[in-house]
Amino acid sequence: LSLAKELAAIVGAEGVLTEAGDLAAYASDSRIEGVPPTVVALPTTVVQVQEIVRVCVARRTPLIPRGAGTGTVGGATPAAAALVLDLSRMNRILAVDRDNLLADVEAGVVTGEFQRAMEAQGLFYPPDPASSDSSTLGGNAATNAGGLRAVKYGVTADWIAALDVVLADGQLIRAGVRTRKGAMGYDLARLFVGSEGTLGVITGLTVRLLPKPAAKQTVLGLFTQLPQAGQAALAILRGPVTPAAMELMDATAIAATQGRGGEALPPGLHALLLDADGQPDAVAAEIDILAATLRDHGAAEVRHAADQAEADRFWSTRRSLSQALYSVRPQRSADDVTVPVSRLVELIEGVARIAEQADVLQACFGHAGDGNVHVNLLYDPGDTAEVARVKRACEELFRLTLALGGTLSGEHGVGLAKRPYLAWEQGPTLIDLQRRLKRALDPLNILNPGKVLP
Amino acid sequence: LSLAKELAAIVGAEGVLTEAGDLAAYASDSRIEGVPPTVVALPTTVVQVQEIVRVCVARRTPLIPRGAGTGTVGGATPAAAALVLDLSRMNRILAVDRDNLLADVEAGVVTGEFQRAMEAQGLFYPPDPASSDSSTLGGNAATNAGGLRAVKYGVTADWIAALDVVLADGQLIRAGVRTRKGAMGYDLARLFVGSEGTLGVITGLTVRLLPKPAAKQTVLGLFTQLPQAGQAALAILRGPVTPAAMELMDATAIAATQGRGGEALPPGLHALLLDADGQPDAVAAEIDILAATLRDHGAAEVRHAADQAEADRFWSTRRSLSQALYSVRPQRSADDVTVPVSRLVELIEGVARIAEQADVLQACFGHAGDGNVHVNLLYDPGDTAEVARVKRACEELFRLTLALGGTLSGEHGVGLAKRPYLAWEQGPTLIDLQRRLKRALDPLNILNPGKVLP
Repeated sequence: LSLAKELAAIVGAEGVLTEAGDLAAYASDSRIEGVPPTVVALPTTVVQVQEIVRVCVARRTPLIPRGAGTGTVGGATPAAAALVLDLSRMNRILAVDRDNLLADVEAGVVTGEFQRAMEAQGLFYPPDPASSDSSTLGGNAATNAGGLRAVKYGVTADWIAALDVVLADGQLIRAGVRTRKGAMGYDLARLFVGSEGTLGVITGLTVRLLPKPAAKQTVLGLFTQLPQAGQAALAILRGPVTPAAMELMDATAIAATQGRGGEALPPGLHALLLDADGQPDAVAAEIDILAATLRDHGAAEVRHAADQAEADRFWSTRRSLSQALYSVRPQRSADDVTVPVSRLVELIEGVARIAEQADVLQACFGHAGDGNVHVNLLYDPGDTAEVARVKRACEELFRLTLALGGTLSGEHGVGLAKRPYLAWEQGPTLIDLQRRLKRALDPLNILNPGKVLP
Repeated sequence: LSLAKELAAIVGAEGVLTEAGDLAAYASDSRIEGVPPTVVALPTTVVQVQEIVRVCVARRTPLIPRGAGTGTVGGATPAAAALVLDLSRMNRILAVDRDNLLADVEAGVVTGEFQRAMEAQGLFYPPDPASSDSSTLGGNAATNAGGLRAVKYGVTADWIAALDVVLADGQLIRAGVRTRKGAMGYDLARLFVGSEGTLGVITGLTVRLLPKPAAKQTVLGLFTQLPQAGQAALAILRGPVTPAAMELMDATAIAATQGRGGEALPPGLHALLLDADGQPDAVAAEIDILAATLRDHGAAEVRHAADQAEADRFWSTRRSLSQALYSVRPQRSADDVTVPVSRLVELIEGVARIAEQADVLQACFGHAGDGNVHVNLLYDPGDTAEVARVKRACEELFRLTLALGGTLSGEHGVGLAKRPYLAWEQGPTLIDLQRRLKRALDPLNILNPGKVLP
């Protein structure tokens, strides 16, 4: 019996892809190109996932779990022959518990659709990766996605109460609790969050919610110099108001959006875009403090979004940056280096210096409130000399980040792209410990082999 | 060479206890009696901890890490011959990074002393277990301690950026990051938090801080019926104000404090004690909303603390409850069952019914905002019939808790006392997975053997 036939017996013929054209779409995530998978399975139930894992175990076929493939480090990219398990058809919101502010969802629910469904009920799911229009809650959990609201609300891990996980032998566990606290045994849910599909397949989540904030306002600061924007961000973090989002965008990144819906922001200036949310009176007071701090720290201009439509235009420009940069050069490095916030300005200045010395175009944006800068070195993968310059510049950036007390990834994870650099940040004992955990949970190395650990 | 002599060569003679009188003090935590350890070692450096672990490995001697021994489930109680590693002499605050709101501390720093040291600098460490006057930051991390402020600020795990951990083979790792986010590899810090000394010895912590709230106010609601207090707590959770603390105390618990400093609270009534903290104007508005909610939900009386001294008297009464109950009967069950907050009133009513049917005295207090009730069945361990009734009543309570969707421990952990009940809550696959992790990290079963996992 062929693998495809075994799979069809589990998920039906419509849940198995084997055509070259279909498989090609699974050869990469949003940035890292690999090889097409041998086969793609699209289960609709947890039991199907368990059976597929068991087939992979019996055949020793590597299995790569995949949400929407919006990652940037190749976590869902096949590097060699493998089955891709596409969870996007498991996309039901199963239950919402308003009293306890919990929702039960399948892993393939699209994050933005879930956010809107909750908001329609007066509820609020805070994690908000820039990819929310297509990325899934299961993918967000597998990568511990951050996003625009982390400065106030934290990352995906902070909003997960419990997970359904299919283990490497096909057994199903539920890790975590439905209560606000739990101390029975080890924190297994947290171990699977951010493990990039190498320890188990997340099939379902119980996520925590908040009541929807009654009000939200948006303010934009424009700067002639990028380090000024960094200084203003620091001043805001030291002040009394925690913004609901605080995003940095440099002029190069903004320019790339012109003609692509990004006309909301003026060309030639660097931007710091902020939200405040909460009770209406408090929000009005907070947005004034934020605006004053921007003015006091060198903003050439401060604009209050006149209404929700203008705020939406500002934010959709921010969300469009990653894709817009491909119009400048065909490829980008997309590093999400993160430093202690007090070192943010040094990082920004260092990036400019490194790119200039390497003669590489660069654009920076990202989560200023978290010390997390998305550094994009822009290049043509066909230009070998440029590729080599970019690689050297990236490594220079990594050295700078570590020297500033930072981490090489704030939210994108390791995948394939950062795997050679894990040992730059972590010692051999720490890496060996992770290998022992991987072996304990996946002794046959079936789940996303060759990812994360060097 | 005897074990004691080997240890003395590492920590000096003054760092080794072998006298029966000294060892007796280590035979129990605050509640669970075991046997005295073979020897106690009191290291002052991480290198000493590493060397002690290596000695234990060479001799196959079980090692029990211990902070201040304030636990209630026997996590630090020897059940058989073992070395106790007392970390209380590693009690230095090493560094405070005001810009990034981080502090580096040794594991033996007393939590309350640390809180006060931070507050003297205008900073704030939110986790606040009731034992903070004696418990340690390392012990809080090893048990993932909760406490009075969890309703607003979360538990210890939420405030740990990174940990220094000595592994079961004596190697040292640093798990975690100093940045606000990190996605390089597995979340190892979170795995050690709450593992009760079974996976590694926490020797140092980098904890997150906040700016100290500018203002705090306290309000007390008094009720004639305990379920009314539970209803009022729910109404507050559904309202716009998140209290900084919301503690329930029943009349039996309050009565036990009379003559022991607890005169701040009137006898015969049940209490809900709340704090609001933040900016002064906001706090004033919040405390009024909290007081109004108490009144609207059946409070017979609502008292605003006139000043900080009165607030301190209220809170020190709350903190004294655990010990005060020993004046009623020589032993207490001290269960910290936790349910989804919407089921809190059912839990409270169920406890009263169960205790009455079992003919056992009981007192309830705890963290109403977390759905976490400290249920104390009071008994004399010498009265065999009463002990049997208490055991049956506890098990009835556990069944009720699970039926309500809860967990058998919100914050105390498993230790020895809850070990027989882990399988009531978690399936065999989940428990087996934890056993695999334990074996991967501690193959010789040196670290706190016989705890947590059945």
